[in-house]
Amino acid sequence: MARAMADRIWTAALVVIGDEILSGRTQDRNVAQIAVWLNAQGIRLAEVRVVADREDAIVEAVNSLRARNDYLFTTGGIGPTHDDITVDAIAAALGVPVVHHPTAVAILERHYDKRGETLTEARKRMARVPEGADLIENRLSGAPGIRIGNVFLMAGVPSITAGMLDALTGTLEGGAPLVSRTIGCWVAESEVADLLREAERRHAGVAIGSYPFFREGRVGANFVVRSTDAALADACVGDVTSRLESVGYSVVAGGI
Amino acid sequence: MARAMADRIWTAALVVIGDEILSGRTQDRNVAQIAVWLNAQGIRLAEVRVVADREDAIVEAVNSLRARNDYLFTTGGIGPTHDDITVDAIAAALGVPVVHHPTAVAILERHYDKRGETLTEARKRMARVPEGADLIENRLSGAPGIRIGNVFLMAGVPSITAGMLDALTGTLEGGAPLVSRTIGCWVAESEVADLLREAERRHAGVAIGSYPFFREGRVGANFVVRSTDAALADACVGDVTSRLESVGYSVVAGGI
Repeated sequence: MARAMADRIWTAALVVIGDEILSGRTQDRNVAQIAVWLNAQGIRLAEVRVVADREDAIVEAVNSLRARNDYLFTTGGIGPTHDDITVDAIAAALGVPVVHHPTAVAILERHYDKRGETLTEARKRMARVPEGADLIENRLSGAPGIRIGNVFLMAGVPSITAGMLDALTGTLEGGAPLVSRTIGCWVAESEVADLLREAERRHAGVAIGSYPFFREGRVGANFVVRSTDAALADACVGDVTSRLESVGYSVVAGGI
Repeated sequence: MARAMADRIWTAALVVIGDEILSGRTQDRNVAQIAVWLNAQGIRLAEVRVVADREDAIVEAVNSLRARNDYLFTTGGIGPTHDDITVDAIAAALGVPVVHHPTAVAILERHYDKRGETLTEARKRMARVPEGADLIENRLSGAPGIRIGNVFLMAGVPSITAGMLDALTGTLEGGAPLVSRTIGCWVAESEVADLLREAERRHAGVAIGSYPFFREGRVGANFVVRSTDAALADACVGDVTSRLESVGYSVVAGGI
């Protein structure tokens, strides 16, 4: 039973809400930073969808993914302008109304009061949340992130999302983090395909990924061994390294 | 009718196949480059999914997306190693067997023959395609891209995918490219939310996106006006610019 508990894999999905990503105008940076952060929490990023700023597209993605993952994250569309429709779309997906969160309203009131200004309706939009939601602290700018059930609404701006992830660190239940070990080799991956395939078969509980590259006019590849068990990963890396060396290749620990 | 034809929007979806993207190890660069290339062909990138190197995940994504888009692209997993399962997964999704493409075999035979080597079974894996597929030229490395019906299998390495996109340029039917105009303003977007909302309402056929940022200790935003009609986009930009200036903001043409 203890073993079964340890083996439980916690997963998350991410819905990137952004016409600016789909148009190619903006290079997404949230997938990689959320993936790395999740792994440190013992949660695996299982799937990502990038959808347009359209309520039906967001609702479809959110409802498909939240049902089959432990956690669902979204990025983008939580600001105060007309194209920020994430809060309304998540409320629609969950079947709850949109309300003003009293704490968020109070934060905004204090913020504008200090500057001798008033909380206009447009500014107050930043306090809208699906009913029943909690806030996620945002030290960098006014608008907080939002948590409702297993759904987490983060900012589109990567530096703001980074702050929200900091605020969430250690608060989500997860399992054993995935351990990853990389070795590099100046070899065309087809030359060692059989060696890798057999190594993965021999080492149950590890997955080996092969990532080719072209640099300085030469082909090479990095081999990434992943496992939730560091000892298994290390044993597999040792085995692959000695087999590569025994057929004449030099291996670069840590990757090229 | 001519008007209806002109208004037809051609769409594509992209399935990024890659444990290395989901683990955060690799920063994806294919979404942005494929989005920009598609737009130049008059095709809009409508949705993206990032899935694990697992056949069931690939099949589900491919079959959902190819039915509702004109074109479907995949990136990753077309190399010769055990973790390259894209060809098998696409064949399974389409219900066709995997075969060796005779032209691809001939290319590989010539390649290894020149070096006095033989085409081993492991090397020959790079010539496997779903039955009925055509090849997409790859000048950079051995393994070609693959086209079958409206499905296009591209490399995971961005520079190789760039070459394959070059080979495809001008061969796909599309509509009018989406025109995009950007203006920037040092303003908190909540201050101009009403102005933007009303501008979008006044200018049918355009969409306005608002993208806030924090730089040099100040908040600002870029406003992106998108339309398939350049004259409509320009008129909307002119209108938004003069309204922003009339309430005291300076506008930076082209964005900040």
